[in-house]
Amino acid sequence: MYKVKVFVTLRESVLDPQGKAVTQSLHALNYKEVTDVRIGKYMELTVEKSERNIDEVINEICTRLLANPVIEDYRYEVEECVFL
Amino acid sequence: MYKVKVFVTLRESVLDPQGKAVTQSLHALNYKEVTDVRIGKYMELTVEKSERNIDEVINEICTRLLANPVIEDYRYEVEECVFL
Repeated sequence: MYKVKVFVTLRESVLDPQGKAVTQSLHALNYKEVTDVRIGKYMELTVEKSERNIDEVINEICTRLLANPVIEDYRYEVEECVFL
Repeated sequence: MYKVKVFVTLRESVLDPQGKAVTQSLHALNYKEVTDVRIGKYMELTVEKSERNIDEVINEICTRLLANPVIEDYRYEVEECVFL
């Protein structure tokens, strides 16, 4: 079994109004030291072993469903779980 | 300057209908090996150095604005940026 952590972020060139709103809220709360916030998505997938390669499956899932490749980048980390 | 990565996830005991919907969509797309998905938030903060300790500031920001401590957990990673 694998635990896969997927991080989806907006591309650098894409405006992030949600992040701007959070930055402004933080300034209103007097955290002036925070100059920028970018919001992304974080997903934890539990994946059973199958005959397909895990990287292949995750890349397919990310481009087909979890991320929009036009405006978003993704990266992921795979952890293999071992039960003793 | 610091780059802070914040991960906010629903607590284990809290139901995640959004994650359930993604799991079902993945099954519909024939990725039966994915047995569970939990959705969280991922935020990248750019924080200037100030006289306050960075951990103290981030913990305050997370509990006051970024996460709901009743149903969510958070963790973060701080990277210090050095310009040469």
